[in-house]
Amino acid sequence: MATLSRESLHVSVWDPVATSMNFLNEVADRFPDAISLAAGRPWDGFHDPADLPRYLRVFQDHLAASGMPPDRVGSLLMQYGRTNGVLGELIARQLANDEGISVRPEAIAVTSGCQEAMVIALRGLCARPGDVLLAVEPWYVGITGAARLLGIDVVPVPEGPGGLDPAAVAATARAVRAGGRTPKALYVVPNFSNPSGRSLSPEARLGLLDVTEAEDLIVLEDDPYGLFGLGDEPRPSLKALDRRSRVIYLGSFAKSCFPGARVGFLVADQPVLARDGRRTLLAEELSAVKSMLTVNTSPVAQAVIGGLLLESGCSLRAASRDKSAFYRRNLRTLLRALEEHFPDTAGRRVRWTVPSGGFFVVLEVPVPADEKLLELSAERYGVLWTPMRFFYADGGTHALRLSSSALEPGRIGEGVARLARLLADHS
Amino acid sequence: MATLSRESLHVSVWDPVATSMNFLNEVADRFPDAISLAAGRPWDGFHDPADLPRYLRVFQDHLAASGMPPDRVGSLLMQYGRTNGVLGELIARQLANDEGISVRPEAIAVTSGCQEAMVIALRGLCARPGDVLLAVEPWYVGITGAARLLGIDVVPVPEGPGGLDPAAVAATARAVRAGGRTPKALYVVPNFSNPSGRSLSPEARLGLLDVTEAEDLIVLEDDPYGLFGLGDEPRPSLKALDRRSRVIYLGSFAKSCFPGARVGFLVADQPVLARDGRRTLLAEELSAVKSMLTVNTSPVAQAVIGGLLLESGCSLRAASRDKSAFYRRNLRTLLRALEEHFPDTAGRRVRWTVPSGGFFVVLEVPVPADEKLLELSAERYGVLWTPMRFFYADGGTHALRLSSSALEPGRIGEGVARLARLLADHS
Repeated sequence: MATLSRESLHVSVWDPVATSMNFLNEVADRFPDAISLAAGRPWDGFHDPADLPRYLRVFQDHLAASGMPPDRVGSLLMQYGRTNGVLGELIARQLANDEGISVRPEAIAVTSGCQEAMVIALRGLCARPGDVLLAVEPWYVGITGAARLLGIDVVPVPEGPGGLDPAAVAATARAVRAGGRTPKALYVVPNFSNPSGRSLSPEARLGLLDVTEAEDLIVLEDDPYGLFGLGDEPRPSLKALDRRSRVIYLGSFAKSCFPGARVGFLVADQPVLARDGRRTLLAEELSAVKSMLTVNTSPVAQAVIGGLLLESGCSLRAASRDKSAFYRRNLRTLLRALEEHFPDTAGRRVRWTVPSGGFFVVLEVPVPADEKLLELSAERYGVLWTPMRFFYADGGTHALRLSSSALEPGRIGEGVARLARLLADHS
Repeated sequence: MATLSRESLHVSVWDPVATSMNFLNEVADRFPDAISLAAGRPWDGFHDPADLPRYLRVFQDHLAASGMPPDRVGSLLMQYGRTNGVLGELIARQLANDEGISVRPEAIAVTSGCQEAMVIALRGLCARPGDVLLAVEPWYVGITGAARLLGIDVVPVPEGPGGLDPAAVAATARAVRAGGRTPKALYVVPNFSNPSGRSLSPEARLGLLDVTEAEDLIVLEDDPYGLFGLGDEPRPSLKALDRRSRVIYLGSFAKSCFPGARVGFLVADQPVLARDGRRTLLAEELSAVKSMLTVNTSPVAQAVIGGLLLESGCSLRAASRDKSAFYRRNLRTLLRALEEHFPDTAGRRVRWTVPSGGFFVVLEVPVPADEKLLELSAERYGVLWTPMRFFYADGGTHALRLSSSALEPGRIGEGVARLARLLADHS
């Protein structure tokens, strides 16, 4: 009988992230009536499966109108297909409309969610044992998990109270190089980061691009929350500012459309030069990685997103006005509830980030925000949150992440009230 | 400007497979009117996208009938979801009906196609640098590509003229161990293998399971063609014979349903014991790998396959009778055409495998079956095939793979006639 030792499996290599996230899910399952300030998913109310057949139809009609014969439309949806997918043109139009990003369709690869885009970019760029990823810390666990899966070392670049300082990126890159390894890429969420809620200032964006040129880094730009700013100030994506092909843009439709399609993409327009003189685009080279991970992204799922893009006139910014208004209201409700339940006193020991948009706020607390406190919080106080420790290599012990995205606004105040009682009782 | 050197990218590590497959696709694109005996995809005529909305509806009705409230049905299709997917119960019923495999739904993980199942199983099992995969050679390029992506060494186990000999597996495992590395798993396609068309004999199946127990190996069993035998003799899957949890079953719906869903699965019912005494199933542990690759498989795509399984009464064997009859006829047509165009003479220098089912026949030829000959074949003779060299670490220079699956029967004879002219002119 093959009883396997857990320690012989690869998952044991990347504990504690896997066990931490499992623990969070288990607690959420055990206390389904607790108010979840932990869940960073989009609000359920925006999704109706009755729309799915219409999206499929709209996309098929678009193909037919462009002159594709019916049997080709059928095989495009139901056969094996092009490794980098069939939405390149529609996504290029959406990026031009919404982000001012100008890119050829051949530089776009459709992926099985943004998570696969991370895996593909990392695997493509980091070829040698000493090739290292820099990541702004606190970080999204998906990027460190992807790196661990591939055996790629991750070196943190700490985010300061004012956000990321490009000089810190340069210093980290130099230190890595001085240690005999090669920093290949930097992962950054420029808008309303998960988990910190922080954004890159306009100056930091330009400064960061200069640093990547000086230090020979590729930026992995992940921007799932960019549509959901509290205000309308411009937030140019790094890719829109990128004149030197330093940025790979990682795209998600999970918040702007819906998560269940599991359709994401990457933009990789870097020229690649082979020894024999052949020139390609990085996205074309990365298709070899994609083909060995998932062959191609489900064209059924792509067709659903294609129909949604077509119905929006290839502008998700315009089509997301209701979503944007909802998430703004929820974030403002969360920030107001924090003001109310943690009033500003001289000796105030609970502080929080005040993001200019997105889904997340970080609360610094005077007690260890660990699994034990979380379990108590769920069981006795009926409120869930995420320990910030999950998002650090080493740190975040006295902080927790709150999310406002998945709740009715009316539940947020009560959630924060419960959290305030927990902290009052256990500080 | 970031112009990347191709040699700095990970794809350069696994040339020549990537470039070979690219070459094949390019030739096929340049000569669209050539008869393709290269394409191993299912026949287009079985797929109608008008079925998709009905599959979605059938699956949603099934959830509703099982008592799920409408809002939960909606979020199941459109939100993030369970990492290992939502088709465990239906797949367990299908495996019981069609394969005599008895397995709990929790031991099943739905994947983004069978390719992702390979990546997940390999990554989960091979944790240390010396952990090695054994693979029956000639092999499916998807498994060696997945291993290269993860930096896992592959050691070939040569298939003899009578198919795989379990003693060869034992000898290879021992040689690997003697070299200081650990053979963790063996990849095998027991029925009508891609590319060789060969099958494991009933005795070899039992012998192989004994060897895996003696050598402490896990079998990765991949069976995409099992439904398409020429005869109806029983072909028990290794998993159905597995009494000692030695087999991970890699499942594909690409041929039995359709490829464009990109839904596959793995069955991993191995008990896992952690140091702290906690017991899980391997599929549950592998969900940590899956979550960092693609989060979860598109529930829209899962719903489509779910509807198809429900419509079939969870028996794809019964539902695939038309497909099975078509592929049998095509394979018989191909074998007859080979008899006709390469008649049996004393000095016959063209031989081929005579498989008992599936999509593939291997032709041994008296000339190097290389890219140059393939390009000539496409351009001057109007017929495509696959060099067998693609499926070996080192070998297969004088052989080519023919596939009968994607063609109308009427085209197969003409394709073989063209091939015969090519070989007559260039032998």
